[in-house]
Amino acid sequence: MNTLLITAESTANGIVEREFTVNGVPGVLWSPESAADRAPLILQAHGGGNHKKHPAMSGRAALLVRQCGYHVAVLDAPGHGDRPRTEHDEREIATMFAARAAGEPEGPIVVRYNEHLAKLAVPEYHALLDALQQLPEIGTDGLVGFWGINMGTAIGVPFVAAEPRVKAAVFGQHWPQALAEHARRITVPIEFDLQWDDEHITREEGLELFDAFASTEKSLHVNSGRHKELPRFEAESAVRFFARHFGPAARAV
Amino acid sequence: MNTLLITAESTANGIVEREFTVNGVPGVLWSPESAADRAPLILQAHGGGNHKKHPAMSGRAALLVRQCGYHVAVLDAPGHGDRPRTEHDEREIATMFAARAAGEPEGPIVVRYNEHLAKLAVPEYHALLDALQQLPEIGTDGLVGFWGINMGTAIGVPFVAAEPRVKAAVFGQHWPQALAEHARRITVPIEFDLQWDDEHITREEGLELFDAFASTEKSLHVNSGRHKELPRFEAESAVRFFARHFGPAARAV
Repeated sequence: MNTLLITAESTANGIVEREFTVNGVPGVLWSPESAADRAPLILQAHGGGNHKKHPAMSGRAALLVRQCGYHVAVLDAPGHGDRPRTEHDEREIATMFAARAAGEPEGPIVVRYNEHLAKLAVPEYHALLDALQQLPEIGTDGLVGFWGINMGTAIGVPFVAAEPRVKAAVFGQHWPQALAEHARRITVPIEFDLQWDDEHITREEGLELFDAFASTEKSLHVNSGRHKELPRFEAESAVRFFARHFGPAARAV
Repeated sequence: MNTLLITAESTANGIVEREFTVNGVPGVLWSPESAADRAPLILQAHGGGNHKKHPAMSGRAALLVRQCGYHVAVLDAPGHGDRPRTEHDEREIATMFAARAAGEPEGPIVVRYNEHLAKLAVPEYHALLDALQQLPEIGTDGLVGFWGINMGTAIGVPFVAAEPRVKAAVFGQHWPQALAEHARRITVPIEFDLQWDDEHITREEGLELFDAFASTEKSLHVNSGRHKELPRFEAESAVRFFARHFGPAARAV
């Protein structure tokens, strides 16, 4: 039993925000105030060190809700947001900051730690989808997408590889080491973001992960700039990607 | 003296089409019927074997005119459209088709032939710009962009490298051999298209040309598919790219 408990509800600027837990894991669901009977659902996963209501999450959700009339949900990742950190979390985070301070590569630590978190988070996302599909405005036969960059890709690639209900996904900015084997099982359309001057992920690593996806329809968007400089317009591009695959914008708000 | 002679004018669906010659070179100018006093100008160059009014040219122009209120102009390349082929043209084209029939690489022939055509076409585009800027609705102080894929890139990269009036450009799908040296002198924002499964241009060649641009703002759009399968939505992306850099859409039509 995947129990969805709504813990708070508010409405602002045409968007209904419902905070919830699924099996105790906290999440948030954004929906159009004047919704269609049924609308696609986009699952998001946030980046490392962030949380479910980080501006990147709520901002992308607002675009999807307002421009497409879709529902958007995101969970706090293990050790993030309202969830406690374990001793293992604290140790890995300290190791990562020590590498950063020493000018050593963070990649191997992030790959290892994100892989650990993904093993915990993937079943939580399957349970989230089960629970949200019980809502009549989402339903069990609706279109489902996934959108996660950075750690959101570390969680999303193994999740989408194992989740046939997801029909399109936006990923980006992660290493191939733990993810390429999952990507080779993904066949749905994807859009993938890379930074050309990423100080953590080499061009070869980024391109290797993009290349690994088995999708016949896939797009790579590379922009000049460093790891944290992914341009804002890529969020609008991702929204258009979902609108292209999930049908005409419903403009429900 | 760069003499612009308007040879035909017609209006359909809110777009004014003027055919012209500049120093005898035939071209076409598309403009919004109800134009702003001044609007940006996008110069296009067509692909190999095509011509100034190929649907790719008129279709992209229609997007730019309708969505942005811009002016759009394109010339027939030497040996293309209404321009006669020389013996050299005939020989190079025959060599290219012979390579294709024999299953041999076309790249080296296309690179060499396009470089030859670009040497002729680049001064024609400088003259075109001089002439069009004499029109009051374009003017000498307006924003100018360039958009050309395939052979349009072979012409456009040396042209933009030598033309400080061009402030943003969309290129793609060509080899680095004859172009990278010019690309290294281009600093304006660019958007660049590649096909991930191009049967003529290797990934390494395509990425090498993208990398060569000195632009601090540059975006690469890679899509799955073969050389001729560049998705339609990349035309819409290019229009948004120009709209982003040249200001809000004027919606003059």
